[in-house]
Amino acid sequence: MGTFIGHISPGLAFLSFGILYAFKFSLMVLRGEKIQLVSAARPRGYRSCLRRIPAEGVMKIVYGTLAVMAEFFYPPGVNKLIIYNKEQPDHPFIHPNEWQHVTMYSYFALSGWVDIISQACLPRRLFLLENIAITLAFYTQALILHSHMHGKERVENSVHTLLLLACFLVCLILTVEIWRPNDHVLWFTKTCLVMTQGTWLLHAAFILYKPFTGKPWKSDDMANLMFVTNFFCWHIALNTILLLAIFSLTGLWLSRCSCRGSGSALPNTKTLNSYLKWADGTGVPSEHDKLQAVEEEIQLLQECDF
Amino acid sequence: MGTFIGHISPGLAFLSFGILYAFKFSLMVLRGEKIQLVSAARPRGYRSCLRRIPAEGVMKIVYGTLAVMAEFFYPPGVNKLIIYNKEQPDHPFIHPNEWQHVTMYSYFALSGWVDIISQACLPRRLFLLENIAITLAFYTQALILHSHMHGKERVENSVHTLLLLACFLVCLILTVEIWRPNDHVLWFTKTCLVMTQGTWLLHAAFILYKPFTGKPWKSDDMANLMFVTNFFCWHIALNTILLLAIFSLTGLWLSRCSCRGSGSALPNTKTLNSYLKWADGTGVPSEHDKLQAVEEEIQLLQECDF
Amino acid sequence: MGTFIGHISPGLAFLSFGILYAFKFSLMVLRGEKIQLVSAARPRGYRSCLRRIPAEGVMKIVYGTLAVMAEFFYPPGVNKLIIYNKEQPDHPFIHPNEWQHVTMYSYFALSGWVDIISQACLPRRLFLLENIAITLAFYTQALILHSHMHGKERVENSVHTLLLLACFLVCLILTVEIWRPNDHVLWFTKTCLVMTQGTWLLHAAFILYKPFTGKPWKSDDMANLMFVTNFFCWHIALNTILLLAIFSLTGLWLSRCSCRGSGSALPNTKTLNSYLKWADGTGVPSEHDKLQAVEEEIQLLQECDF
Amino acid sequence: MGTFIGHISPGLAFLSFGILYAFKFSLMVLRGEKIQLVSAARPRGYRSCLRRIPAEGVMKIVYGTLAVMAEFFYPPGVNKLIIYNKEQPDHPFIHPNEWQHVTMYSYFALSGWVDIISQACLPRRLFLLENIAITLAFYTQALILHSHMHGKERVENSVHTLLLLACFLVCLILTVEIWRPNDHVLWFTKTCLVMTQGTWLLHAAFILYKPFTGKPWKSDDMANLMFVTNFFCWHIALNTILLLAIFSLTGLWLSRCSCRGSGSALPNTKTLNSYLKWADGTGVPSEHDKLQAVEEEIQLLQECDF
Repeated sequence: MGTFIGHISPGLAFLSFGILYAFKFSLMVLRGEKIQLVSAARPRGYRSCLRRIPAEGVMKIVYGTLAVMAEFFYPPGVNKLIIYNKEQPDHPFIHPNEWQHVTMYSYFALSGWVDIISQACLPRRLFLLENIAITLAFYTQALILHSHMHGKERVENSVHTLLLLACFLVCLILTVEIWRPNDHVLWFTKTCLVMTQGTWLLHAAFILYKPFTGKPWKSDDMANLMFVTNFFCWHIALNTILLLAIFSLTGLWLSRCSCRGSGSALPNTKTLNSYLKWADGTGVPSEHDKLQAVEEEIQLLQECDF
Repeated sequence: MGTFIGHISPGLAFLSFGILYAFKFSLMVLRGEKIQLVSAARPRGYRSCLRRIPAEGVMKIVYGTLAVMAEFFYPPGVNKLIIYNKEQPDHPFIHPNEWQHVTMYSYFALSGWVDIISQACLPRRLFLLENIAITLAFYTQALILHSHMHGKERVENSVHTLLLLACFLVCLILTVEIWRPNDHVLWFTKTCLVMTQGTWLLHAAFILYKPFTGKPWKSDDMANLMFVTNFFCWHIALNTILLLAIFSLTGLWLSRCSCRGSGSALPNTKTLNSYLKWADGTGVPSEHDKLQAVEEEIQLLQECDF
Repeated sequence: MGTFIGHISPGLAFLSFGILYAFKFSLMVLRGEKIQLVSAARPRGYRSCLRRIPAEGVMKIVYGTLAVMAEFFYPPGVNKLIIYNKEQPDHPFIHPNEWQHVTMYSYFALSGWVDIISQACLPRRLFLLENIAITLAFYTQALILHSHMHGKERVENSVHTLLLLACFLVCLILTVEIWRPNDHVLWFTKTCLVMTQGTWLLHAAFILYKPFTGKPWKSDDMANLMFVTNFFCWHIALNTILLLAIFSLTGLWLSRCSCRGSGSALPNTKTLNSYLKWADGTGVPSEHDKLQAVEEEIQLLQECDF
Repeated sequence: MGTFIGHISPGLAFLSFGILYAFKFSLMVLRGEKIQLVSAARPRGYRSCLRRIPAEGVMKIVYGTLAVMAEFFYPPGVNKLIIYNKEQPDHPFIHPNEWQHVTMYSYFALSGWVDIISQACLPRRLFLLENIAITLAFYTQALILHSHMHGKERVENSVHTLLLLACFLVCLILTVEIWRPNDHVLWFTKTCLVMTQGTWLLHAAFILYKPFTGKPWKSDDMANLMFVTNFFCWHIALNTILLLAIFSLTGLWLSRCSCRGSGSALPNTKTLNSYLKWADGTGVPSEHDKLQAVEEEIQLLQECDF
C-alpha cells in the first residue's frame, strides 16, 4: 500500500526483527554459542514438536500473512485480489503496487514456514535451508524495490534507493553467511542494517505521507534530496548506538543472572572472557576452530543411529 | 529469431538442461559423489570411447547446431547466411539479431564438443576444460544479451534485463565453481537459475509475441513493467519448489531401489545420513576434506604409469 | 563549505593522515610488528590511561570538531546551525551542503573517540571496534559524496566522482581489513589512497575556486573533463612515489638508529630480512602464521585472570 | 593519437605481449615451475646484472617511450608537448587525447623500469613490486579509457566500452594475483584477455578509420552496434583457440627437446603428468602446497646471510 500505514507497518516489522536479532546475537556471542549447521537428534512426538516452534518463524508468518491480507482487503470492503481489469477492452493490469508488496510479504511468510518446518518438524534442524529461504526473501525484496521506482517522484525514489541499498547489503551478508554462518561481525552488521531498514521505513512514511510542515517535499529542490541522504546517515549512527546499548544491556543482565545463580564472581569473568574472545576471535575463524567444528559434526553423525 | 518460436525453443532447451542438472546433482549429493578434477585412467579403444560419450554434450551439440541452422534457414527457403547487403551502395550489415543468436548458440555447441572430447576421447577426463567452456558460453550470452537491447521497447528490455540477471548470476557461479567445484549450494543455485532462464524464456515468448489478451503490452504503462518483475519473482519461487520436488523424488527413488536391491533398511539410513552430511557439510568445505582430496589426487597420479 | 578553504582544509587533514599512516605502517613492516586484535592487559589508573591516548585519535577529534564548528560558525558572526527556514511558509531545508559536511566530519570525530576509548580507557585495546568505526566513517563519506553531486556543474561532478572512487576503494580495503588486518599490500594501498584523497582535494580547491588562469573551467569543454582524469592519474603516481620515499627514509633511519644503538651490523641485516619477509610473506598469509596467531591469542586469554 | 596508426600500434604491442605471455606461462605450466615471490640471492656485479635484464621489461620501456614520443612529435615537425594554449585569452587545455595516451603509455614504461630494477638490479627479485606496477598501469588504462569516451560517436564508444571491459577484467585478475600468484586459470585468462585487447584494437582501427566499405559506420544504425559486440565475441573465441594452439605447440616442442636430449620416453611422461597435475591442481591450491611453499620460503630466508 503506497500509504502512510503501508510504510509504518513494515517499518515496525523490520525494527522488531532487528531488535530481536540484536538480543539473540548478543546472547549467543556473550555465551560463546555457535550456530550448528545440523543440530543433534531431537525427541519425536507431537508435543515436543510444538514446544520447539520458534518465535521468529511465527512472527514472520503472522506479519507476512497479515500484510498480504491488508494489501488485498484493506480498507474493509475493498477487494484487490484481481490482476487485470476485465471490464476494459485490452484487459490492463491493475494494482501493480499491491501485487509487488504481496510478492515480497509472501516470501517472508514462506521463510517463516521453512523456519518452523526445519526447527520443529524435521528430525534435525537444517540451518542451511532456513538461511537460504531468508536470503531468497531479501533478494526478492531488492529486486522488487528496484522495479518499484518506475514513474515516481525524485524524493520518493531517493528514499527507496537508500532502502534498496540497506536491503542489498543484507542480501550480500546473508549470501556470505551461507558459507560463514558464525562470523560475529556479519551477525551484527546484518542486525544493524535490518534495524536501519525499519527506522528508515518509519521515517519514510512521514517524509512521503505526513511531512511535518504539512506540505509535500518538493522534488525539484536539491536541498531535499541532499537531506534525505543526510537523514539516512543519522539513522545508521542511531541504530549502531542502539545496537551497542542492547549488547551492553544483555551483558549486564547476563552477568547479574549468573551472579545471583551461583553466588560467585566466576561467571562474570567468564562473560568478560567470552566478550574478549568475541573481540579477537571474530575476524579470523581459525583453522583450529574449523577442524574442531568438523570433528564435532562427524561425532554427531556417528552417534545417531536412526 | 525475434519470434515466438525463437523464444520457445531456447526456453525448452534451458529448461531441459535445468531438469537434467536437478536430477544429476540430486543423485550426486544423495550418493555422496564428488566431481573429480581428473578422472582415473580409462580404457582406450574406439568402443569404450563411444560408450563414454555424455548425453549432456550431445544435447548441447544437437540443440546448438539445430538452432544455428534455424536462425539461418528457417522458414524453409530463406537464406540469412550473409553479413552485409551487397546490393546497397554502403553495404550495411543485415540480420544483426540472427548473427547474435548464432554466436550464442555456437558457443553452447562448442561447449558440447569440449564435453565429448574431455569425457570420451582424452585419456583422462579434464573437468576444468569443460567448466571453462560452459563458463565462456554463458559469459558470451550475457554480453550479447546486454547489447541485444538497443532500440527496443521498454517491456521487451525489461524482460531481457531479468533474463540477463539470471544469466549473469550463472556466470558468477560458474566462475566460482572453477575453484570450488564441489560446493552443493552452488550446484543447486545454478540449477535453479538455469531452470528459471528456461521458464522465463517460455513466458517471455507469450508476453512478447502471443499475449493472452491478444494485444501487445503497452510500454508506457508502468503497471506492465512492474508486473514483469513480479512474474519473474514467481518463476523463481516455482522453480525452487520444482527443484525441491525433484530432489525429494530422487531421494525416494534411490531409497526404494536400494531397499529392493539389498532387502534391508541400512541403505535407507545411509541415504538419510548422506543427506544430512550434505546439509551440514556444504557450507564449510573442511580442511580435512581438502587434505583428503589432495591425497586422493596425489595417489591417483602416482598409480598411473602410461 | 563549498569554498576554497572548505576544500583545502579536509585536503590537508587527509594528507596528514596519509603521511602519518605511511610512517606508521613502514615502521611496523620494517620492525615486523603486527596488529594485535586484542592487546595484553594493561596497567590501570588515570595516569597510565592518559599516557596511552593515541595521537591519531586526538587528531581525528580536533580536526573533526574544528571542521564542524567552521561549517556552522565560519566566517565569524554567521550561524548556520539551523535545518529549515522558519520564516518561509513551507519551511524549506537550508544549508544542505553544510549539514552533509557536518555529518561526514562527525563520523570521523566519532571514530577518534572510539580510538581513544579503545586504546586508553578499556582494560584491553579492541582493534576491531576501532576498525569498524573508521570503516563506517569512510562509508558515510562515500554515501554523502555520491548524493553531493545533485545539480552541480560537470567539471565539479567529475572532480567529485574521482574523489568518490578513491574513497570507495578505501571503504573496500577497510572492509577486507576487518578479516585480514595484517595484510601489508592492503596497508600501503590504503595509505596511498588516503594521501591521494588529500592531494586531490587540494588540487580540486584550485580547479574549482582559484583556477590559475583566473577564469573558471568551462563544463561544456570535453578537454577539461579529460584533463581532470589525467591529473588524477598523475596524483596517484606522485603519491606512490612519495610513499616509496617515506618507506625508504624510514628504513634508512631505522638502520641508522639500530647501528648507533648496538654498534653492530646485525640489526641492519635484520631490517633487510624483515623487508624481504614483508615482500614474500605478504601475499600468502600462511596457515602456519594463522595457527601461530591463534595460539598466541589463546595463550593471552589463558594468562589473564581479572 | 586518434588515428589509424594510433590504434594499430598499441594493438600490436598488446598482441605481442599476449603471445609472449602465452609461451611463457605454457612453459611454466608444462615444466611445473612456480613464480617465486622472492628469488634466491643472486651474484652481484655489473655483468651478471646486465645478463639478467628481462626482455619483457625492455619491450615495455621501448614500446612505451616510442609511443609517448609519437604522441608528441608525430608526424615529424609537430610539437604537441604543451598543455594549454597561451595565445588564447582563457588559456584552454589542448591535446587532451594525446596527454591521456601519454599518461597510459608512461605507466607501462614505468612498469618496465620496475621490472628491470627488480629482476636485474636488486639483490633479490621482488615479484610483488613488479606485479603492483603492472596492475597500476592497467587500472590507469581503465580509468582513462572510461573518461576517454566523452563526446564521441556511439560506434566509437561501443568499441571502447568493450576494450574497457577486457582491460577491467585484466585489472581484476592482476589484483587477485597479488594474493594468488600461482593460479594457472588466472594466468591463461589474463593472457587471453591481453591478446583479445590486442586483436580488438587492430580491428577497431579498421572499424573507425579504414572501414572496408570505404564509408564510416553509421552510429544511428542499431545493426552496427549489435555487430560490434558480435565481432568482439568472435575475437574471444579466436584468441582462445590461438592460446590452445600455442600451449599445444609448446608441449610438443618441449617433449621433442627432452626426447632428443635424453633419448628416452620418460620426459614425455613427465610432461603429460605435469599437464595433468596442472589440470587438477589448478583449482584447489591445496593446504599442502601452501604449507610447502611457506617452508620453502622460510628455508630460503634462513639460508641467506648477507
